[in-house]
Amino acid sequence: MLPPALYVNMKEFDLLKIVEEFFGHEDILIPAGKHDAAYVRANDKFLVLTCDTVNEKSDFPRFMKAEEMGYMAASVTLSDIAACGAKPLFFLNAISMKEADFDLFKRILIGIKDVCSKYGVKVAGGDIDFSETLTISGFAVGEAKRIITRNSAKPGENVYVTGLLGKAQLCLELLEKGFDRESLPYPESLYKPEPRIREGLKISEYASALTDISDSLAVSAHLMARGSGVKIVFESIPTKHLENYPVDPLELFLYGGGDFELLYTAKHSEDGIKIGKVEEGKGVYLKVDEELKKVEFRGYSHF
Amino acid sequence: MLPPALYVNMKEFDLLKIVEEFFGHEDILIPAGKHDAAYVRANDKFLVLTCDTVNEKSDFPRFMKAEEMGYMAASVTLSDIAACGAKPLFFLNAISMKEADFDLFKRILIGIKDVCSKYGVKVAGGDIDFSETLTISGFAVGEAKRIITRNSAKPGENVYVTGLLGKAQLCLELLEKGFDRESLPYPESLYKPEPRIREGLKISEYASALTDISDSLAVSAHLMARGSGVKIVFESIPTKHLENYPVDPLELFLYGGGDFELLYTAKHSEDGIKIGKVEEGKGVYLKVDEELKKVEFRGYSHF
Repeated sequence: MLPPALYVNMKEFDLLKIVEEFFGHEDILIPAGKHDAAYVRANDKFLVLTCDTVNEKSDFPRFMKAEEMGYMAASVTLSDIAACGAKPLFFLNAISMKEADFDLFKRILIGIKDVCSKYGVKVAGGDIDFSETLTISGFAVGEAKRIITRNSAKPGENVYVTGLLGKAQLCLELLEKGFDRESLPYPESLYKPEPRIREGLKISEYASALTDISDSLAVSAHLMARGSGVKIVFESIPTKHLENYPVDPLELFLYGGGDFELLYTAKHSEDGIKIGKVEEGKGVYLKVDEELKKVEFRGYSHF
Repeated sequence: MLPPALYVNMKEFDLLKIVEEFFGHEDILIPAGKHDAAYVRANDKFLVLTCDTVNEKSDFPRFMKAEEMGYMAASVTLSDIAACGAKPLFFLNAISMKEADFDLFKRILIGIKDVCSKYGVKVAGGDIDFSETLTISGFAVGEAKRIITRNSAKPGENVYVTGLLGKAQLCLELLEKGFDRESLPYPESLYKPEPRIREGLKISEYASALTDISDSLAVSAHLMARGSGVKIVFESIPTKHLENYPVDPLELFLYGGGDFELLYTAKHSEDGIKIGKVEEGKGVYLKVDEELKKVEFRGYSHF
């Protein structure tokens, strides 16, 4: 139940390269490797399919309640649906426990039910297995009117996020420094991340590119810049909410994970916080005193 | 990597009762708790949704190759689609590994690709996480023209299975007794179980009730009898393939798990092996010398 190492390079992305080599996707309009979820055709609409897995060793912070484990497992899966601007319809889960602990199981289901009810998602089924490591895998099916991915940002647009970042990682770092749960400034961000379903549905009506931020803003922005063939420049990073703690606020905003906000680009938006712009070129940069500093491809990792 | 305990009562089914209490299913035509997979409406057809999870502690027999772990993970999930007489369309997987072991990962994917290619299933996406226990969760989406479940067996029908049972469990028991992999009589049944997709599609055209056999014939028959409000009587259990080994052939056929054949009822069928009949009443029985013996509700468990 220890929190994971914070900032390491992400071998997960190297593993994902193997996946791309392996599977031909001729019938899949957008495979999940190219975006947060896969798009497949369903008559005049699109189905969006995604899965996510979390476990106690890598993903559950210290002092997390069982209900929150279920909540988080469903939330991170539904966040991929939000990243498609899609309406989530169905959720399925596979839970692996050490033993038939009825109380633990019930509390995990309460958390899953809580977040699914909030967003009108039906829990269609599940599976149970037994394992040394408590693991919850989630699978979600959503419906989208159109395809929007992280790969279509256009030069001249602005870059937005749906909320302030770095809050979950701040809490994780404070736990590492010996804080208890009650003293954390943003416990909800760490323990009950919210999938930005409603925001995704609204934003997808006008945005050019959309993705969620699970690993870090830096990782999501790099994937967006690379996929779109553009350069992303952060011009204004709000860090006031991270100040007055023994941490580096800018580092947390850029490289912290776990907030599950959305990152998107549009000519204009009233829905989010403007943090930068899209330009011709490539890479991700931070403007500091009229100078461009490279933003690294790193963030929260599952290691 | 030790094989699991063989014959214990299944707390999994008690856990499943909690799931039923928890989730209202008003928009789901058949929730997965009532059958092997959930049916939801998709225009004039039905989508079938299911998930399954396997891990090295509970599910992977000794000497299993990494490719076979992937193969099994996909197979057991697709078997639920076969149990709906549905056509599997998409598969997603969530793999949790101890570390970024590229060779292991690649070999698991080879197994997943192998079985998905064989049945025309597209791998739409996946997720990677890190855990002490190697775990593979599979999610599948299928398409069905009509709804067929285990809950509509009718008195007067015959009971069939698509193939001989007990072969996987025989191999598992022989491994326990010190046999090596090369000496096993049916290694494919244990290491590379096959989802009966083609059989399911054909059988669903005329059968009344259909399910797959993952835990044991006894468990599947009990769920079918209970769900249909009927009595199932086994009259002819073929055990020749299990004889000449230091095991109880009838015990293996009835209570062994892992073969992933289909169990179905119909007035008449040329596709399977006839093993019994459906009568009015309740419970599952074995006819021995004109006497009915109770078949217990037990089988292979994930404990």
